[in-house]
Amino acid sequence: MIKVGIVGASGYTGAELVRLLVGHPQVKLAYLTSTKYQGQKVAALYPNLEGICELKYQPYNLKQAKGQLDFIFVALPHGTSMKFVPELLGEGSKLIDLSGDFRLGKKEVYEKWYSVTHTAPALLGMAAYGLPEINSEKIVGSSFVANPGCYPTASILALAPLLSRGLLKKQSLFIDAKSGVSGAGRTLSLPTHFPECNENAVAYKVGSHQHTPEIEEQLSCLCGNKVTVLFAPHLVPMTRGILVTIYCGLKESLATSDLVKLYRDYYQNKFFVKVLEEGCQPETKSVLGSNYCHLGAVVDKRTGQGVITSAIDNLVKGGAGQAVQNMNLMCGFPEDEGLKGIGLRP
Amino acid sequence: MIKVGIVGASGYTGAELVRLLVGHPQVKLAYLTSTKYQGQKVAALYPNLEGICELKYQPYNLKQAKGQLDFIFVALPHGTSMKFVPELLGEGSKLIDLSGDFRLGKKEVYEKWYSVTHTAPALLGMAAYGLPEINSEKIVGSSFVANPGCYPTASILALAPLLSRGLLKKQSLFIDAKSGVSGAGRTLSLPTHFPECNENAVAYKVGSHQHTPEIEEQLSCLCGNKVTVLFAPHLVPMTRGILVTIYCGLKESLATSDLVKLYRDYYQNKFFVKVLEEGCQPETKSVLGSNYCHLGAVVDKRTGQGVITSAIDNLVKGGAGQAVQNMNLMCGFPEDEGLKGIGLRP
Amino acid sequence: MIKVGIVGASGYTGAELVRLLVGHPQVKLAYLTSTKYQGQKVAALYPNLEGICELKYQPYNLKQAKGQLDFIFVALPHGTSMKFVPELLGEGSKLIDLSGDFRLGKKEVYEKWYSVTHTAPALLGMAAYGLPEINSEKIVGSSFVANPGCYPTASILALAPLLSRGLLKKQSLFIDAKSGVSGAGRTLSLPTHFPECNENAVAYKVGSHQHTPEIEEQLSCLCGNKVTVLFAPHLVPMTRGILVTIYCGLKESLATSDLVKLYRDYYQNKFFVKVLEEGCQPETKSVLGSNYCHLGAVVDKRTGQGVITSAIDNLVKGGAGQAVQNMNLMCGFPEDEGLKGIGLRP
Amino acid sequence: MIKVGIVGASGYTGAELVRLLVGHPQVKLAYLTSTKYQGQKVAALYPNLEGICELKYQPYNLKQAKGQLDFIFVALPHGTSMKFVPELLGEGSKLIDLSGDFRLGKKEVYEKWYSVTHTAPALLGMAAYGLPEINSEKIVGSSFVANPGCYPTASILALAPLLSRGLLKKQSLFIDAKSGVSGAGRTLSLPTHFPECNENAVAYKVGSHQHTPEIEEQLSCLCGNKVTVLFAPHLVPMTRGILVTIYCGLKESLATSDLVKLYRDYYQNKFFVKVLEEGCQPETKSVLGSNYCHLGAVVDKRTGQGVITSAIDNLVKGGAGQAVQNMNLMCGFPEDEGLKGIGLRP
Repeated sequence: MIKVGIVGASGYTGAELVRLLVGHPQVKLAYLTSTKYQGQKVAALYPNLEGICELKYQPYNLKQAKGQLDFIFVALPHGTSMKFVPELLGEGSKLIDLSGDFRLGKKEVYEKWYSVTHTAPALLGMAAYGLPEINSEKIVGSSFVANPGCYPTASILALAPLLSRGLLKKQSLFIDAKSGVSGAGRTLSLPTHFPECNENAVAYKVGSHQHTPEIEEQLSCLCGNKVTVLFAPHLVPMTRGILVTIYCGLKESLATSDLVKLYRDYYQNKFFVKVLEEGCQPETKSVLGSNYCHLGAVVDKRTGQGVITSAIDNLVKGGAGQAVQNMNLMCGFPEDEGLKGIGLRP
Repeated sequence: MIKVGIVGASGYTGAELVRLLVGHPQVKLAYLTSTKYQGQKVAALYPNLEGICELKYQPYNLKQAKGQLDFIFVALPHGTSMKFVPELLGEGSKLIDLSGDFRLGKKEVYEKWYSVTHTAPALLGMAAYGLPEINSEKIVGSSFVANPGCYPTASILALAPLLSRGLLKKQSLFIDAKSGVSGAGRTLSLPTHFPECNENAVAYKVGSHQHTPEIEEQLSCLCGNKVTVLFAPHLVPMTRGILVTIYCGLKESLATSDLVKLYRDYYQNKFFVKVLEEGCQPETKSVLGSNYCHLGAVVDKRTGQGVITSAIDNLVKGGAGQAVQNMNLMCGFPEDEGLKGIGLRP
Repeated sequence: MIKVGIVGASGYTGAELVRLLVGHPQVKLAYLTSTKYQGQKVAALYPNLEGICELKYQPYNLKQAKGQLDFIFVALPHGTSMKFVPELLGEGSKLIDLSGDFRLGKKEVYEKWYSVTHTAPALLGMAAYGLPEINSEKIVGSSFVANPGCYPTASILALAPLLSRGLLKKQSLFIDAKSGVSGAGRTLSLPTHFPECNENAVAYKVGSHQHTPEIEEQLSCLCGNKVTVLFAPHLVPMTRGILVTIYCGLKESLATSDLVKLYRDYYQNKFFVKVLEEGCQPETKSVLGSNYCHLGAVVDKRTGQGVITSAIDNLVKGGAGQAVQNMNLMCGFPEDEGLKGIGLRP
Repeated sequence: MIKVGIVGASGYTGAELVRLLVGHPQVKLAYLTSTKYQGQKVAALYPNLEGICELKYQPYNLKQAKGQLDFIFVALPHGTSMKFVPELLGEGSKLIDLSGDFRLGKKEVYEKWYSVTHTAPALLGMAAYGLPEINSEKIVGSSFVANPGCYPTASILALAPLLSRGLLKKQSLFIDAKSGVSGAGRTLSLPTHFPECNENAVAYKVGSHQHTPEIEEQLSCLCGNKVTVLFAPHLVPMTRGILVTIYCGLKESLATSDLVKLYRDYYQNKFFVKVLEEGCQPETKSVLGSNYCHLGAVVDKRTGQGVITSAIDNLVKGGAGQAVQNMNLMCGFPEDEGLKGIGLRP
């Protein structure tokens, strides 16, 4: 039983951590911070926790956080997280940061894509990248993990088998992502106002989304060469879910069945990744509320291209669920503890 | 560990039973029947179970069902269920029927509202009515339970405290229900075709829905007098969830705070029913995917009316979840075993 | 051809006025004000007008508004409208106010329900109530019209035939309304944030919504007696549309067919109100984007109650469309000019 | 005033033709056929037409169709249309076929992609391809037009300027389309059942959709070379709308502003195509219910790729609206007659 705190617990990622951890048999939720909502019950903001979580949001206090907790999740926005993580690190407690602040290796890359000055550059490259299916060895031994972004999770899981096997042509990769609206968080904005985004589909930040260098860095790491991607995210009218469709040139002539087999082999021991059989396509609804990633693979013979599709719940495998999976690995708990929920379908 | 079968496992209620039972620590799912899909994997119809449930649908076979199972759920449509339940009852295995076929006491009432001839009238009145919060004593001792309808679950939980305390004026009750589309099941129909029901709200079967006599019979039983309701269900564009709004005359002059206290007292030991504090309204999103029922109570001083609102997930507390809760009671398992999932919010 | 201005043209009601008026053959849109967006193109906020409306928002200027316009729509929020309407009235230009500020007759009633001090009480009762189907005579001769609220429009149209014929029992009326989210306007708020209201149904302001006294005042006027209603609005996950379900006691024993006939007779010459035949229920989708109101009537014989249902598009018949209809009457144009759009179904 | 008939008027495309034509000043709707619904009022299936269209569906009768009509729309499914079009052609009446049966030039291509034997191959290549923005000259002089598919309309309009100017690299084009559910028509199916497709995003027919050869044939025609595309359609949870995102290599190094200018020049006289300014992305909501196509263009400097996005309403510009536009051209009416509706936003 470990004592766990969440710094920045009032956003959607923080609330999803609470939902997953409140019933985790090895965890005692001890400290949830929120500057804006301090003193209010968590269940007042998230009534799904009514009668289940009696905790209140507390103000942030370094001593309280550091002295009494075994494990800290930092669920603050990028740019804010870097101000808290340095002082929270070390001295016994392990830490997972869920923002984008410690996922990239280089200060200049971060600052170019996030348009923010990085105030803790010494920590860049220090965190293990928390994608367990490709990086579990480093995660297990680490006390500081940078939890992947939602789009990178879906995209890297979709491409890892091809890159590891050296099957991709050296050329641009096209990643077309469709995201539910909760990916934009709890902060109000016009594009996430219901009358604006319901019955609507729209692309945004085409070629300029801040998850692009994270995807490229991890993919490059997997294959040993510099990989460049063209990433185009879209907003579609659903609450949760990311579907990523990737177009990629294949070096060898493969049948779809070969590709599916290759993927199944690669992920055969990875509990949370399911490779669908030939002819089936992943659906975001099938992973709704769960920590699973569903993958589909097709070879288009006319063009020689592979089309890989990947579905996750952006708040679970794309956020809080993956963080819990990382915590389980870092603490020696069973990898799926607290993550046994099955996708809610229909 | 009990061996469990589901007769009629390919519909939404059957699939939801599988979702809830596949991880139940006391249950081994042993037999899932479907005439239409026999031989196909459950996960082919419900890909959320991909890699989690390897079972295939089997044809119905009385000997197989009766001889080898400890517990049987019958999740067939009304009118069909009555053809299977009689031969499945008895000889050791306990049974919960999830259709409307055995919820009412009288053949003529059933036939009037369902427009079907009842072919097993001897069993009417034999099943315990499976609403644990008001009927747990009978359920615990029973080996045959009729699981309540979704609308009756929400409505009866909303009214039980007032009726038990004799606070309702003898007059008509108005129950206005808003339901998600999954309540209509997996069978295709024009009103549940996406382009027809998305961005749409519509009433249906006003005053003539077959759940009306079930609500009236249980409410009458609770207060000892004949209760008549005017029940008007509506379809609104969401997948899951029922919100019921009830307008009811109050005998005494109460403040909203009194009413809320009365409700909290009544349900204080009922884990799955949460009475929200004064000023809060239940939201279907807060119980999405969970077995909880959220209740809100308001006294409108200008008209002397109480307005009670009740939110459930129609497939969980309004169906499969409640059935699992009943099974837990019938088998001596903890009441919330397999039902610990928290509402998915956002 | 008249020169028309819209004061407060950047909200949803203002934008809907632009959509309807930009093609109106008798109207030249000449002046659109917005404090917040002055200098920006209307089409930048509402890209449906791209290449169709080249106007920009201008700052408010009394002289410009008053001197050069034949007709003014004031589409400001309640509480703000009352600060502009007095100085805009008179001197040639006609005016329709779309807020709630001039719909009620009494200052104390307004202030009780709106929790705002009325700063122009001398104008209360001066505007004609702009519901053409029941008040066209006054509208035609008026130069100052208060456009009805969305809920009152649906509710009053649903009840007018019964009240006019003296068929309602003297008792409380129950009005249960289901509204799309655009009814809450363009201003951001948590309850209208997509992840909070999608897949959600919830009641709000039960018995305390500010449209209650407007409904009561107009219904009282129709029947000559004081009418009290219990009004409970709900938010359901769609962009546009209001469905109102009204439960009301009937003095006489009527068949549903009688009730439908009574409604059809009452509205036989009213182009925008369609009474559906027995057995049909109004659907919000059928009036989406149009100025029509669909009505359905049912007599529940078991309880002696009438159940009247009414569907409108809240932004058209419940707002901008009705305002254009009023303008047409006030200016002697054909009543349906600019309002010929048919509901978008599917 | 011409007398118009619609053969196959009960599907969504047929109903949308009725919605658009019922108010067309040059058109008298005279004959609507439906085998399944003959004798029923159109407004019974499409209550948005209640009180507006009093016509009933009639059985198909060649003499009635051919002798008394000036213009015929055939809105039957592919495979069925080819059985009716040959006998309907000629003898005075003009005809637009909205199916895929007469859009392609070659029998073997049709049969490969549609998996249907073409029974009227002599007519292949005889119809003018009805995309007015690129083919108006042929349409004007034609009495037989094949109306484009919804995906090809959005895709070809997005690529025509680049192809016409010879700016595309000779390589595969990637077309990632997101479609609302009405694109699948009124026929019931599991993937379009609300509980299955709401809160869901999924790819289908990746590389094998029957619109692929239509897109390729028209693009090849535009540039004089054989063009191959990889087309991957997706279903997203909205009723109407298609958003197409196209990834394409550019021969020259262009700035985004150059590309936008090139598109604006190309479409400067095309009323229904709006090219958004740099930095803006098309949204399906902005064209909802209208005949407009919105285009956005971005150059991704890192990869040298162009990303073109295109939004239409699949039932209007992607179907019935474009057919009316073609009819206007074929009959010498103003091109936008009956098509003045503006996108419904919000």
